[in-house]
Amino acid sequence: MDVTAPAHRLSAAVSTASRLLPARTGLRLRADAAGLTIAGSDSDLAVRLTCPATSHTDGSVVVPAAPLVETLKVLDAELVRLVVEGSRLALRLDNARFALPLLPETSAVTDALAKVSEVDGAAFASALRIVAGTAAKDDPLPLFTGVRVQSSGAELTLTASDRYRMAVARLPLRTAGDLDVLVPASLLTEAARAASGVVGLHTGPGRFGVSWAGGLVATAVLDAGFLSEESIPSGAVDTTVSLSADALAAAVRRVGVYAEDRRVLTLEVGDAQVRLASARQDTGEAEETLKADVSGGRTSPSFQARYLLDALGAFAGERVVLSIQPGMRACVLRAAEVGEVALTYYLMPMLPR
Amino acid sequence: MDVTAPAHRLSAAVSTASRLLPARTGLRLRADAAGLTIAGSDSDLAVRLTCPATSHTDGSVVVPAAPLVETLKVLDAELVRLVVEGSRLALRLDNARFALPLLPETSAVTDALAKVSEVDGAAFASALRIVAGTAAKDDPLPLFTGVRVQSSGAELTLTASDRYRMAVARLPLRTAGDLDVLVPASLLTEAARAASGVVGLHTGPGRFGVSWAGGLVATAVLDAGFLSEESIPSGAVDTTVSLSADALAAAVRRVGVYAEDRRVLTLEVGDAQVRLASARQDTGEAEETLKADVSGGRTSPSFQARYLLDALGAFAGERVVLSIQPGMRACVLRAAEVGEVALTYYLMPMLPR
Repeated sequence: MDVTAPAHRLSAAVSTASRLLPARTGLRLRADAAGLTIAGSDSDLAVRLTCPATSHTDGSVVVPAAPLVETLKVLDAELVRLVVEGSRLALRLDNARFALPLLPETSAVTDALAKVSEVDGAAFASALRIVAGTAAKDDPLPLFTGVRVQSSGAELTLTASDRYRMAVARLPLRTAGDLDVLVPASLLTEAARAASGVVGLHTGPGRFGVSWAGGLVATAVLDAGFLSEESIPSGAVDTTVSLSADALAAAVRRVGVYAEDRRVLTLEVGDAQVRLASARQDTGEAEETLKADVSGGRTSPSFQARYLLDALGAFAGERVVLSIQPGMRACVLRAAEVGEVALTYYLMPMLPR
Repeated sequence: MDVTAPAHRLSAAVSTASRLLPARTGLRLRADAAGLTIAGSDSDLAVRLTCPATSHTDGSVVVPAAPLVETLKVLDAELVRLVVEGSRLALRLDNARFALPLLPETSAVTDALAKVSEVDGAAFASALRIVAGTAAKDDPLPLFTGVRVQSSGAELTLTASDRYRMAVARLPLRTAGDLDVLVPASLLTEAARAASGVVGLHTGPGRFGVSWAGGLVATAVLDAGFLSEESIPSGAVDTTVSLSADALAAAVRRVGVYAEDRRVLTLEVGDAQVRLASARQDTGEAEETLKADVSGGRTSPSFQARYLLDALGAFAGERVVLSIQPGMRACVLRAAEVGEVALTYYLMPMLPR
């Protein structure tokens, strides 16, 4: 193998691949007329990225990821030449040579994945940022660390929950396609970050994949029951409050300073206003009132300040409508004006202090 | 007490004071015709900052620092009014009220400090950033966690060492003054960050202080032997190398990827060039050569890559001259063109691998 590639493009591709894959997974580099392909896989996961390159001698090698990533990251050059020299892959510059040991060839993963549909990459990434953010980072049940990716007709639904809140985002698919899988939230977030332009959604037996121009990530899907917003009772809404998400979040941050350790805050719903108040022996007490459009009753739910802030963050820059149910039933948050991504956020209330 | 202050200025002053002081130290606020003074102290340390304010009723209170800092940080208002209401200090806005409990009055610290001289704040901060950076973060001997602040005539000398390297910076004082104290490096760094404009240097019995327009920090000085570059042998220089500090640092970063865990790199000094090389079983091997002005012998020292990078960082953007001595004697780094702050950096070599 002997190939010349733009150092920055190669560095970006190699970094993405190594971030998606488990540590110590070797990277397979293949040079041919199509350029340079960077691939890696373990039993659950397969990643393939391409980088433009000029191949002088076609070929394929496997090298350790870490030194390749680190070297390319600090390379101050426009082009880098990769040449196999005996048992080494040498990265060559005019005044420097970096040589990586070759690892045993691994069998190339054949991803028998069929493309189901396509989605706009930016909308997909923005929906995932919020939905995947409500999945638990760590939970014995895969159900709460995954994102359910589901489509019927030309609508894609992304759902995640950590038991205390659930986010559901709906966005348009480019073509109708059927899909219903539970995908690890952390991987989906990383993949959406790497993707750009139009994103392809793929499935195969026990697998799910996301592709974009120059890249593909495929993963085993989680085996678990499915999340669904239909499990959340939402028929008892008696109070509706509409106000700026940012203004409410700022007030929650201020008044939250004065809340006890569990930091539970009550939204006291009044006539055309919402009042936040809290008190704590060592820091003192705080109260703040915000103008709001209020209709229906005066049901005043209490929330964990941290969870309320997360929920409001999903509607940053927007006017949010809170549909409040009495008792220990979820509060439903939606944007007053729905854009391309329609987000519904369910937040469980707390017992007031 | 009843006073109105610009919220951002007050927030900055209160944050600085609380960052300098140990956690849980109360802050004393005093309002009078001069504005608002924020002060705090413990047995070692005293901080005093001023903030412009309009006093409606003069007075003084002590409040817990944390809720005051946190509330002001997220306050979205131009002006804030501070009013004593019973056993509370209330922060009042149109639609909100935050009330802090009053703490028992502490005796005001009287800093019997005499101003010795003044120094340009920007030069002082830039010299301290490098010198304090070479002090140990944690060491049983205060000698290695302090900065020696020393003046004779109109020159200020700052010295620090963690045993493996020593940095000495010399900069002009505005007036001649005598000073020789060992000050905790971490505090000095924080104080220099807060200071601006002209910085005053103060001493008193067992104490040292730094002042600037609107602020003063005073601390007990460390009781320890004094650091001095005269203890470092430097008469055996036989090799001088001059090159770009940034280019050498970039090469050290790249080749260092291929160095063994101790990450020792040898500067192989040749004719008009320096060569870096390293090899490691699992990552492979690397070599890089850099053009350099070389005079004298060809003594080739070895360094910990991390320490060499720290040292080169002190000369970022400059051409650096390395004066190399044979054997286990310090390498001396100086800028090829000395500016207002004259920095000398001593770096101990390692045994080559």
